[in-house]
Amino acid sequence: MDLIQLTTGLNTFWVLITGALVFFMQAGFALVEAGFTRSKNTTNILFKNLMDFCIGTIGFWILGYGIMFGAGNGWFGEIELFSEVDHGTILGIPNMAFLFFQTVFAATAATIVSGAMAERTKFTSYLIFSAVISLIIYPISGHWTWGGGWLAQMGFHDFAGSTVVHSVGGWLALVGAAVLGPRLGKYKNGKINAIPGHSMTLGALGVFILWIGWFGFNPGSTLSLSNPELVANIFVTTNAAAAAGGIATLLVTWFRYGKPGLGMTLNGVLAGLVAITAGCDTVTPGGAVVIGLMAGVLVVFAVEFFDRIVKIDDPVGAVSVHCINGVFGTIMVGFFAKGNGISGLFYGGGTSLLVTQIIGVLAVAAWAVGCGLILFFALKKTIGLRVTKKEEENGLDYYEHGERAYN
Amino acid sequence: MDLIQLTTGLNTFWVLITGALVFFMQAGFALVEAGFTRSKNTTNILFKNLMDFCIGTIGFWILGYGIMFGAGNGWFGEIELFSEVDHGTILGIPNMAFLFFQTVFAATAATIVSGAMAERTKFTSYLIFSAVISLIIYPISGHWTWGGGWLAQMGFHDFAGSTVVHSVGGWLALVGAAVLGPRLGKYKNGKINAIPGHSMTLGALGVFILWIGWFGFNPGSTLSLSNPELVANIFVTTNAAAAAGGIATLLVTWFRYGKPGLGMTLNGVLAGLVAITAGCDTVTPGGAVVIGLMAGVLVVFAVEFFDRIVKIDDPVGAVSVHCINGVFGTIMVGFFAKGNGISGLFYGGGTSLLVTQIIGVLAVAAWAVGCGLILFFALKKTIGLRVTKKEEENGLDYYEHGERAYN
Amino acid sequence: MDLIQLTTGLNTFWVLITGALVFFMQAGFALVEAGFTRSKNTTNILFKNLMDFCIGTIGFWILGYGIMFGAGNGWFGEIELFSEVDHGTILGIPNMAFLFFQTVFAATAATIVSGAMAERTKFTSYLIFSAVISLIIYPISGHWTWGGGWLAQMGFHDFAGSTVVHSVGGWLALVGAAVLGPRLGKYKNGKINAIPGHSMTLGALGVFILWIGWFGFNPGSTLSLSNPELVANIFVTTNAAAAAGGIATLLVTWFRYGKPGLGMTLNGVLAGLVAITAGCDTVTPGGAVVIGLMAGVLVVFAVEFFDRIVKIDDPVGAVSVHCINGVFGTIMVGFFAKGNGISGLFYGGGTSLLVTQIIGVLAVAAWAVGCGLILFFALKKTIGLRVTKKEEENGLDYYEHGERAYN
Repeated sequence: MDLIQLTTGLNTFWVLITGALVFFMQAGFALVEAGFTRSKNTTNILFKNLMDFCIGTIGFWILGYGIMFGAGNGWFGEIELFSEVDHGTILGIPNMAFLFFQTVFAATAATIVSGAMAERTKFTSYLIFSAVISLIIYPISGHWTWGGGWLAQMGFHDFAGSTVVHSVGGWLALVGAAVLGPRLGKYKNGKINAIPGHSMTLGALGVFILWIGWFGFNPGSTLSLSNPELVANIFVTTNAAAAAGGIATLLVTWFRYGKPGLGMTLNGVLAGLVAITAGCDTVTPGGAVVIGLMAGVLVVFAVEFFDRIVKIDDPVGAVSVHCINGVFGTIMVGFFAKGNGISGLFYGGGTSLLVTQIIGVLAVAAWAVGCGLILFFALKKTIGLRVTKKEEENGLDYYEHGERAYN
Repeated sequence: MDLIQLTTGLNTFWVLITGALVFFMQAGFALVEAGFTRSKNTTNILFKNLMDFCIGTIGFWILGYGIMFGAGNGWFGEIELFSEVDHGTILGIPNMAFLFFQTVFAATAATIVSGAMAERTKFTSYLIFSAVISLIIYPISGHWTWGGGWLAQMGFHDFAGSTVVHSVGGWLALVGAAVLGPRLGKYKNGKINAIPGHSMTLGALGVFILWIGWFGFNPGSTLSLSNPELVANIFVTTNAAAAAGGIATLLVTWFRYGKPGLGMTLNGVLAGLVAITAGCDTVTPGGAVVIGLMAGVLVVFAVEFFDRIVKIDDPVGAVSVHCINGVFGTIMVGFFAKGNGISGLFYGGGTSLLVTQIIGVLAVAAWAVGCGLILFFALKKTIGLRVTKKEEENGLDYYEHGERAYN
Repeated sequence: MDLIQLTTGLNTFWVLITGALVFFMQAGFALVEAGFTRSKNTTNILFKNLMDFCIGTIGFWILGYGIMFGAGNGWFGEIELFSEVDHGTILGIPNMAFLFFQTVFAATAATIVSGAMAERTKFTSYLIFSAVISLIIYPISGHWTWGGGWLAQMGFHDFAGSTVVHSVGGWLALVGAAVLGPRLGKYKNGKINAIPGHSMTLGALGVFILWIGWFGFNPGSTLSLSNPELVANIFVTTNAAAAAGGIATLLVTWFRYGKPGLGMTLNGVLAGLVAITAGCDTVTPGGAVVIGLMAGVLVVFAVEFFDRIVKIDDPVGAVSVHCINGVFGTIMVGFFAKGNGISGLFYGGGTSLLVTQIIGVLAVAAWAVGCGLILFFALKKTIGLRVTKKEEENGLDYYEHGERAYN
């Protein structure tokens, strides 16, 4: 192989293997969501996680890819059916390699929603809104940043998707959980009842799998190995933020609740990972630790806020992890950026980056919340969003699928 | 490193990492088989999956590798003990890299059988026939196609092993399950009883692991990154067929049984993966979707056929997934091939490829079925193939191993 | 990319992806330890495994890396806070890539201890000694071999860490388990009671994950793909030793206890992996099989020795796997080395290598045992090492964390 072939071969390998790691995050999400919910709904939650990837794969290939990466204008790409237009070669990799990598990202956004809406959502409705997310909602706002759209032109920086992927999924999860209402028994006679999941082991294994998946998610977003320093930095910042998130949550739960809590600490690790995703390429390892620590604190108060103040029932904490920390991490770039071409407030960069980050966060929030309201109310008013009381009480596994998860 | 060193380094890396992903499929098979069977036999099924890889590793190194890749003639390679003859350098990678990659493939063929024969096979007999498969049966028919044998010379196309790996395992599974007879209570007083597995969670996690493993299995079979377009296409066709398989099975179970079934849909994903394996390098993404959709339909009817018509008891659906869809996918190459040097019927290629594909399928079927009959009857007549009624009723874990899986 | 960029890119990719596989071993350890212990302590053991990686990540970055790789003298590197000194470029990879790779190794050493001390250790004490291991104990003895210290200068050969990683963790595990004392009910009225774990499935999945992680651990330790033959050999020797270990243990348990035991055989696979780690780069595949077979025998007798003779209660067999086989594998290099620049006794190398290997083993043993005694007695006399009788009886999950693992 000559230099050009080697370069293409190496970068294609890089994009595909990191993409495979991102694919593996689907297993991580499935296990976290299954572990943090009750065993009577396990078949259902696993099934949803499986199907959103299946549907996302086909949907993003048919329509999403063109909407997101087609030239179009600042707001919308192109209707390019079946990924026939080449968006890879310009990046030095085959079009199909870029399609694969972007498909697994799109599926991540979609899968976040299932956790917040677990244990009470109709299977049919889930399949429909999951398809709409992968086909339309995610690619449109994705185009603004990664498709060269108006946010990209403003200088908005979201390297691997704190906003583009996680907050979009997180906002939709928030709206979905709100429109759907809490699970039966969650808020009763003015009392807030904890509904423990059925397996910490699944939750912990899921987080370990998500963590290794993030070593695809963040470093793979370079799409190239031409800057090995950058790639290596991203491994370190990603890992450091995750570790710091775990440590911070451990301490907060210990002081606040008297005992260190594993369930919350697992979410602390995820919070650190989500928060570092936007700036993983530009912050220092020290900056990553600080961002991770703050994320690990933030997630605890966010969970309390939604659970106790706003009373939105999010069984797995998906909103606190993906939405709140997606937003938080994106804004932190405005403070901590140092390198890869940009500087934040703390490193002499002035306020303009910070302002841009906030604009990006708000714009994507408005889009995702608006779409979510239309989508979830439309489903509620038509085929219905929620299972019957009887189904919910006896478990979705039996009524929706005729298959219990455990025998 | 100079150009030659870089090329060898890159390709070796590629073969070894994709080989490691294929290795991981062993965990996937173990979980799927454990999840789809009863908890009283879990230690036993895990143990079998562990040991077939251990035995396969040593056996393929001692004998199988030479039989499969040694020059020999069109039907049989060479007896080259301990992999001392170099078959890698000619491919541009170290001999040991090629040995490792082929070892994890050989172990895949062997491990398919354990699922179909689960919950009633004697452990000793299992170890023996597992060794015979890795040492002799798989390498001989493998030589015909991948060792440059008579099927290769005819132009038979099985890129990553729908026939060479999956259907060989699948045919042996079919014969084994037939010779062994159904589990106690499966067919009773003319009634067909479903015997549900003990954990959907294990089944689903297993399928996710197999899916990521397939990103090693199919693209890794290029053995090189000299054609990045090809490698990227294979990622997309593999993923698309899996997703389409899942969607098709979801819909079929929904219409046919009134409810979408997770257990079957997991097998639909696997069916799509098995079916695309032969032609993953040559079909288009659209072709992959069509093949996947058909595989997802086919697997449902195949399971019904074996379960209700032929009454062969295959607890995990291994025959329907690996044999039927291995055959199906291989034949589909004759229709859908378009690229990588070959064309199928639908793309102006005439019928000769299709005929060759059918000949290959039949030849390998005859070989595997013949070997299976001899092997399983020989075991049945000598040390016995099946545990006692008492062992089967109380579970193999306690009687065969003295260890229950769960306490 | 030019030749130099390609070389750096390729090697960085190699180090980071194999590092990610080593990271995944954390999940493997967590599952093995959870599976081999009782369900009332599962939250606790998962939590410990999560936190030692979080703490290790931060601690090794702050202090450990400099102590291990700083120039210093033969016994101690440097206090280089926050990994600011570059130890990567000299190896041809970015400093951050080398830091990441070494971090996941350091965390492996720390995590071994949790298994041997499971089901009775105070959470607070665990966090403290885990930090001390990653920050100080492991980096100091690590410096002797991998930091260019006195053992390296003597010619001590421990390619990927049978001694540097596994035996350090194993010796600390031994001292910790001894100082802590056995679990309640383990030794009662002169009787030795087996306390079975709660899930073979978790144990088996954990071992499969550790096995694939080892394909990062051993081959990744080349830190480069400039010698593809070497890398490929390491894949084969690693895999062969694991398989041989499993087969040997299967046979030994079968003959000795009348039935083949899965729990022990899983440890046999790990024993083979630990034992081959020191010499994976220099032994032949045949040598690897022999070492693996011996490791698989050794682990059974080691478990019996600690359980029945010395009466040290090690719930998961961590000492027998990591300490005994780490020592054994390191010494075997003195006999079986053949290639990569060294020769053992069996290949005309004389006794000097063997003597050096024994010196290295003893020196590291003395260091780890000495540190362990000080550390564990200091904790015992201050904040206490062990939970109360009531906590132990009712499970650590509820008392230490307020969260049961399963509902």
